[in-house]
Amino acid sequence: MSKQKRYFLSEEEIPRQWYNIQAEMPNKPLPMLHPATKQPIKAEDLFPLFAQEVSRQEMDQEHAWIDIPEPVREQYKFYRSTPLVRAYGLEEALGTPAHIYFKNESVSPVGSHKLNSALAQAYYCKQEGVTNITTETGAGQWGSAMSYAAKIFGLEAAVYQVKISYEQKPYRRAIMQSYGAQVTPSPSMSTRAGKDVLTADPNNNGSLGTAISEAVELAMTTPNCKYVLGSVLNHVALHQTIIGLEAEKQMQMAGEYPDIVIGCFGGGSNFSGIAYPFLRHNFTGERNTRFIAAEPASCPKLTRGQFQYDFGDLSGLTPLMPMYTLGHNFMPSNIHAGGLRYHGAGILISQLLKDGFIEAVDVKQTDTFKAGLLFATKEGIIPAPESCHAIAAAIDEAMKCKETGEEKVILFNLSGHGLIDMTAYTQYLSGNLVDYEVSDEEVARNIKELDKII
Amino acid sequence: MSKQKRYFLSEEEIPRQWYNIQAEMPNKPLPMLHPATKQPIKAEDLFPLFAQEVSRQEMDQEHAWIDIPEPVREQYKFYRSTPLVRAYGLEEALGTPAHIYFKNESVSPVGSHKLNSALAQAYYCKQEGVTNITTETGAGQWGSAMSYAAKIFGLEAAVYQVKISYEQKPYRRAIMQSYGAQVTPSPSMSTRAGKDVLTADPNNNGSLGTAISEAVELAMTTPNCKYVLGSVLNHVALHQTIIGLEAEKQMQMAGEYPDIVIGCFGGGSNFSGIAYPFLRHNFTGERNTRFIAAEPASCPKLTRGQFQYDFGDLSGLTPLMPMYTLGHNFMPSNIHAGGLRYHGAGILISQLLKDGFIEAVDVKQTDTFKAGLLFATKEGIIPAPESCHAIAAAIDEAMKCKETGEEKVILFNLSGHGLIDMTAYTQYLSGNLVDYEVSDEEVARNIKELDKII
Repeated sequence: MSKQKRYFLSEEEIPRQWYNIQAEMPNKPLPMLHPATKQPIKAEDLFPLFAQEVSRQEMDQEHAWIDIPEPVREQYKFYRSTPLVRAYGLEEALGTPAHIYFKNESVSPVGSHKLNSALAQAYYCKQEGVTNITTETGAGQWGSAMSYAAKIFGLEAAVYQVKISYEQKPYRRAIMQSYGAQVTPSPSMSTRAGKDVLTADPNNNGSLGTAISEAVELAMTTPNCKYVLGSVLNHVALHQTIIGLEAEKQMQMAGEYPDIVIGCFGGGSNFSGIAYPFLRHNFTGERNTRFIAAEPASCPKLTRGQFQYDFGDLSGLTPLMPMYTLGHNFMPSNIHAGGLRYHGAGILISQLLKDGFIEAVDVKQTDTFKAGLLFATKEGIIPAPESCHAIAAAIDEAMKCKETGEEKVILFNLSGHGLIDMTAYTQYLSGNLVDYEVSDEEVARNIKELDKII
Repeated sequence: MSKQKRYFLSEEEIPRQWYNIQAEMPNKPLPMLHPATKQPIKAEDLFPLFAQEVSRQEMDQEHAWIDIPEPVREQYKFYRSTPLVRAYGLEEALGTPAHIYFKNESVSPVGSHKLNSALAQAYYCKQEGVTNITTETGAGQWGSAMSYAAKIFGLEAAVYQVKISYEQKPYRRAIMQSYGAQVTPSPSMSTRAGKDVLTADPNNNGSLGTAISEAVELAMTTPNCKYVLGSVLNHVALHQTIIGLEAEKQMQMAGEYPDIVIGCFGGGSNFSGIAYPFLRHNFTGERNTRFIAAEPASCPKLTRGQFQYDFGDLSGLTPLMPMYTLGHNFMPSNIHAGGLRYHGAGILISQLLKDGFIEAVDVKQTDTFKAGLLFATKEGIIPAPESCHAIAAAIDEAMKCKETGEEKVILFNLSGHGLIDMTAYTQYLSGNLVDYEVSDEEVARNIKELDKII
């Protein structure tokens, strides 16, 4: 009998609750502060911008388990459970005694894990009588997921896409439009924020910061319209725990438990999703799993940033959040891991890193594509540039096992496929990708700016 | 308890044999004829071009079941079983009493069913000491699959990609290159065939016919190099029966049996794959299932072509095959269903159509995209333009059920996803797609040419 490669759950076994790590963290995170008053904010303070239910989830430190609404779980069944895969091909290629598993979130209809939270957020909006949602997207993974979810739950979606991506990634734009979303290149003339940028610089290529400002402004000035966000925030991480909760059951089917859990790291949505459900067993002392967040060397907030209150956006409009940050003015170099270019980490991740529950590593751009191509030729799937960071870190750990002879169990999250990011692979294959590493001076300069905030 | 949406087989349940319909067809197909002698050809006549085992499979009218080699089956486990999905979302949108199921072949690492035969062909080549393979590709689905399979089994792959696709579909080219294939735009200066075209017309955009000629020439002039083909031929259909064999088991899990089985139709690879395993129960009289091949109105060989001996390629180098054809000189209009632009049907399909075992319908281009977008917003997955033909035909049958109130069970094959074909969707959404229908005169003129052949 041959060895099993993929593990699925039956639809009955798909989890019925998300895991809310806030309720069980030994040290609770510091509160978010109002940007003007510098006073802790409450769930109600978020109601004007976000759906009420996700605002409550954002602040919930009481309930460790939160029910997944049945209509959301029904939508999960379109693509979940996602397979847990034993990477025999990769193991053999590396000659490692390690057992490597990956959770394949690339099988979602939009090609990444982002849908897990998009569906939940769209559902809550619909329940609360919201008719329109708005968001921003860079590379387009989140925008695609949100467009899909809005369509499913009967909401109108307006997506501000960073202008350079809008022009360079027409496929992702077309996917959003196919799901019925209105996609606007940002900066645009449809908001005050966009007009201000364009007035000063008519050829501005856009940035995630500007696109956030435009989406937030549209939400605040449109009746029945809410803003939705795809990473960083606690409620997004909550929804993503479906990944790790499934993986835990699937690892049981494989008769193993991970010694190391790895995810790539941008704002934290996919890393939190795979890590938190396993991390809870470290809190109780039952397990001693290592958790590794793999971030780009060009945007190294976890490995080289500072734990401090900072804004979530460039303009300083969001609440102040206690987090590892490179400073909200930090502009990452032109790297391809589109979803990992954010200056800060989520509140929960930051506290967990500070408390020693998780580790972080940074990976150079060319090393990520090298790892991604090896993975593609041994496991078939061409990974998203973001996911390549997790693969590189997993290979690194597997090679350490080869040296020591240890038969460790490594689990990483394949957050998405790269079929719509082939431009980056073409550049790598033609030798046109270079590595960027942030200078110590730049990091220091940006962080120094933070002293003025609080 | 909620209704089950997706059905998977365990790895043990993945079929261990392909179904060879040739052995059980009531009327055997007429033989292929040598293009020069006009005499029936034997398996050995194909050895110079194809692997020996697939040459034997091509002619095998004895064995109804052929073992899937264990290394191929191991590779199938990377993405098989593919899910059988109950399309509740689509049913509800249509308000039909029909039960609609689809087999989701888009989950393969390269995004289509093509890998099912690519892996088998690469394996047999490797077994027989072949070191290099060559093939042609238009839209790039087959080229991607073959590049992947060659890499997995340690063969060097050379792919001739129709030049206009090479330039307009850089993502598919990049996928092939990421799997290590050498991709050459055709016509090229690397073959006599290519040079002839370029000498006469330096700006020639290429055609599938020219690309085939180039690949065949390379195979014939290179030591240890074989040619591989992704459709039309009997052995390709054989390998694709894994689709229908799985679907039959999965339909059993759902407690149903299809009244109607539908596939889009180009050369026949995915239609044969889903249809033949069910069709065998019609031969015995045990079942009376309808089988519908959905082809583009712009390339209507099954609905408007003639059953006659014709060449498989433009230049008349291949064996003569008894088939429904529009004439090998037929040039389909500029439609987006890249994989469905072939002038003829496979030998087996043609005989089965002639004998009344299958039906064919033609679908207009804009109707296919309309159907595809409805599917995308109700079932999540953006379908390949080819697959949209099957969806349109399935919707058509489901709407007939709505009129009659019949609760028929409809099964169609979703041969691939459209994430790398978004340009076509963009054109449709912007109203820039038009319908092409072939004139009766053009069909008659082309078919008249065939009289000269035999």
